[in-house]
Amino acid sequence: MPNKVNLLEKLGQFQDYWHPRIVGDLNGQQVKLAKLKGEFIWHAHEQEDELFYVVEGSLDLEFRDRTVQLQAGEFIIVPKGVEHRPVAREEVSIMLFEPASTRNTGNVTSDLTRSDLERL
Amino acid sequence: MPNKVNLLEKLGQFQDYWHPRIVGDLNGQQVKLAKLKGEFIWHAHEQEDELFYVVEGSLDLEFRDRTVQLQAGEFIIVPKGVEHRPVAREEVSIMLFEPASTRNTGNVTSDLTRSDLERL
Repeated sequence: MPNKVNLLEKLGQFQDYWHPRIVGDLNGQQVKLAKLKGEFIWHAHEQEDELFYVVEGSLDLEFRDRTVQLQAGEFIIVPKGVEHRPVAREEVSIMLFEPASTRNTGNVTSDLTRSDLERL
Repeated sequence: MPNKVNLLEKLGQFQDYWHPRIVGDLNGQQVKLAKLKGEFIWHAHEQEDELFYVVEGSLDLEFRDRTVQLQAGEFIIVPKGVEHRPVAREEVSIMLFEPASTRNTGNVTSDLTRSDLERL
């Protein structure tokens, strides 16, 4: 039977940046939580749309032609194939909603690539 | 190109209960916002898992064997086939993640069934 998930309680269980944790599975999609600080890398997800929801803090989502600034309580859906780069000037906590197959660095492999994400 | 969605701003655009609005589409899934007050009907979704996230207020999600009380900042995933009934003692604002095919009353047709949901 299902249990509820409290976002802040789960976010309190880790502190490392750019390392998402899985907190839910539904319909082949996953809900993930992550803390971000600093600049990520430019990448795209060729097959997957990706939703970024800000829980606490603010996040700049850079696109090649503009930047969207997200505050707590706001989300954006990045369509498949669209290059983007998350930039967090201060620590930000986010929730992601994306297919279970989605890799954090998309079509790019780098030191930031994470596989075998843990479940909290 | 994608635009951001502010949950409270979208929620401010309607007031009727049990009438979800679509605010995002990704990977065959939809993000919906709704305001609830009172008791819904018992139902299940035979093919679709459904995520309830509380934005403001609190929500009782009744299952046949227990009740889970959700506060703002908490979510639960109701697996396909599991009977449930949302009950809001006071007005509550929620965000839903579910397949685009999901009908609000699932396997039950009633006066509360909504089709052709608007996009905000």
